Amino acid sequence: MLELRLVQGSLLKKVLESIKDLVNDANFDCSATGFSLQAMDSSHVALVALLLRSEGFEHYRCDRNISMGMNLGNMSKMLKCAGNDDIITIKADDGSDTVTFMFESPTQDKIADFEMKLMDIDSEHLGIPEAEYHAIVRMPSAEFARICKDLSSIGDTVVISVTKEGVKFSTRGDIGTANIVCRQNTTVDKPEDATVIEMHEPVTLTFALRYMNSFTKATPLSNTVTISLSSDLPVVVEYKIAEMGYVRFYLAPKIEEDEEDKS
Amino acid sequence: MLELRLVQGSLLKKVLESIKDLVNDANFDCSATGFSLQAMDSSHVALVALLLRSEGFEHYRCDRNISMGMNLGNMSKMLKCAGNDDIITIKADDGSDTVTFMFESPTQDKIADFEMKLMDIDSEHLGIPEAEYHAIVRMPSAEFARICKDLSSIGDTVVISVTKEGVKFSTRGDIGTANIVCRQNTTVDKPEDATVIEMHEPVTLTFALRYMNSFTKATPLSNTVTISLSSDLPVVVEYKIAEMGYVRFYLAPKIEEDEEDKS
Amino acid sequence: MLELRLVQGSLLKKVLESIKDLVNDANFDCSATGFSLQAMDSSHVALVALLLRSEGFEHYRCDRNISMGMNLGNMSKMLKCAGNDDIITIKADDGSDTVTFMFESPTQDKIADFEMKLMDIDSEHLGIPEAEYHAIVRMPSAEFARICKDLSSIGDTVVISVTKEGVKFSTRGDIGTANIVCRQNTTVDKPEDATVIEMHEPVTLTFALRYMNSFTKATPLSNTVTISLSSDLPVVVEYKIAEMGYVRFYLAPKIEEDEEDKS
Repeated sequence: MLELRLVQGSLLKKVLESIKDLVNDANFDCSATGFSLQAMDSSHVALVALLLRSEGFEHYRCDRNISMGMNLGNMSKMLKCAGNDDIITIKADDGSDTVTFMFESPTQDKIADFEMKLMDIDSEHLGIPEAEYHAIVRMPSAEFARICKDLSSIGDTVVISVTKEGVKFSTRGDIGTANIVCRQNTTVDKPEDATVIEMHEPVTLTFALRYMNSFTKATPLSNTVTISLSSDLPVVVEYKIAEMGYVRFYLAPKIEEDEEDKS
Repeated sequence: MLELRLVQGSLLKKVLESIKDLVNDANFDCSATGFSLQAMDSSHVALVALLLRSEGFEHYRCDRNISMGMNLGNMSKMLKCAGNDDIITIKADDGSDTVTFMFESPTQDKIADFEMKLMDIDSEHLGIPEAEYHAIVRMPSAEFARICKDLSSIGDTVVISVTKEGVKFSTRGDIGTANIVCRQNTTVDKPEDATVIEMHEPVTLTFALRYMNSFTKATPLSNTVTISLSSDLPVVVEYKIAEMGYVRFYLAPKIEEDEEDKS
Repeated sequence: MLELRLVQGSLLKKVLESIKDLVNDANFDCSATGFSLQAMDSSHVALVALLLRSEGFEHYRCDRNISMGMNLGNMSKMLKCAGNDDIITIKADDGSDTVTFMFESPTQDKIADFEMKLMDIDSEHLGIPEAEYHAIVRMPSAEFARICKDLSSIGDTVVISVTKEGVKFSTRGDIGTANIVCRQNTTVDKPEDATVIEMHEPVTLTFALRYMNSFTKATPLSNTVTISLSSDLPVVVEYKIAEMGYVRFYLAPKIEEDEEDKS
């Protein structure tokens, strides 16, 4: 039997909004340690990894490991029916082919049960090796989202270059070119406003803006985003979920564009 | 001669917004007692009844009973041109084939006259008998609107079941099922937040969500909605208009679905 | 070399938004006195004149007169990438076929350069003679915008009539007629709320609402609008830009409709 009670139900709503446009169907894996998901996007270019640790739930009961295949669009439709202050409980009986989402209003005057059919989804769990990155940029998530959106009005790809001084986002399109430089800045009033660069060697990589913009749908989950770059690895765009885990997006750089940019 | 001056003009704007999608053309009936309307929706399934009592107007002159046929879409276009703080006056000369809406800004610096052609509309006035209802639910109107909207994302019909403990709204669709229970709750800080159930016998009825959602366009008119149910009568969904009257919507239950639900 | 630094960058964003739907391509003329533009709309009916005086810039360097042809849609795309609090600098090297817009965030932590190709645009600079107007109306810009929008829901043209008492905006369409009168009113708390009429002789003129609505896109630039009318001249709709200049729109009256209205 599975019963996961999350007092801050809006977190789960935000998680679904952040990944539902990228992934249609996916298995949610429940174990004693947490509620997680790993899935490729529908065009098999980007990878999403979600973790909500069991400690973050008010009540967490998972008798045995279970993998529940869900259509994320339908799951999102149901979670949208939860109020932002509602407590959300995910429930599944052993061997059942359905999952139930229960929404309790803060006053307990309104209780909703939404039951959804589970799906059989073939999926291979990819091992994501721990890696050393050439450069790690931590910056305000809203700033990163704004930059990706702005550059999309000019071009299709973004070149991200990290030096000690800062991180540069560039694009080029029919109407012209754009370069946006964010300087390292740690002397800010609020720590979440800082732009912090941890760099072992300079790195310049090119990515499709379409995916970057899709990743920024996770912005409501966290005030900051961490971008980890290495020339021979997919970029990791990570949004931490306070005291619970993270949503991470992986995307391979575009090789050709990268070369072009270096030339 | 007709001259009806309504200081809180935004009320009339809200009334029109609440019924214009349901009814295309209708007769507004003016008499010494008030300004009223009764009309079937364009597919002849739901009935709307509006009453604005003469006492609610600052000035109310209606020399003789008159029925004015109006296109509600056009009337709504004109009323949208009134500011939310404007005083609205409805004027018609005897025998005239037009009606004039006058909008005065609170400072009297801006005065607008909108004149609209009247229409000849055949309509039979249905007598709506006073009835005893099995159950009457009073609840926050925004809550009811949210429930109808949420259930529409899952199914097409709503089953409303009233017991002493509360009222349950259920639906079922391709992606799953949903049940939302609102418990009776009278110990709230603000009286308009209460959910009050007056029940003579339990009742379970099924309705098309499309119409329920249309009725909830009247939500801005009142903080509370009253739903009156009997197994052999159309449901009445009523929004009171403070100190003036009401908008009431009548809708016959769906027979088949109701049976199915009981089985 | 050209280098114009505007601390209140949002002004330039608003200027572009106010004219980009009316004019596709235009020459921006830079001289020692200021940054200006004069252009006909794409259907050659309305004329736009913009002036930003050099004194309004924090830094203004323009070594020699230069005319820069720009696509206003593309320029607007780039300026939309500037934050509302950003400082905007317009830069162009002598003989260059590009212009650069630089955006600096208030904290200087984010610096963006957007480079756009210039275009060759044939344009004749029309001399606009100083004129005496029969009537000049100054009123709140939001009020004027609201009136043009409201009347558009009824008809296609607006008849503007000025008398000593006030200004009347009228229209007529399939669903009826509308008249909106704004009375002269100078005894207001805030000077920008005043409606002031300076009249030498009464005037009644008819204009296409489509253009008037387009002009009101400049509303964010100023709290007041000035409408200058003469029976034998195009109307001038002017939005002042605080301490810098103006955006002026010129539109010829519709002759036929005017006659019809007088009859």
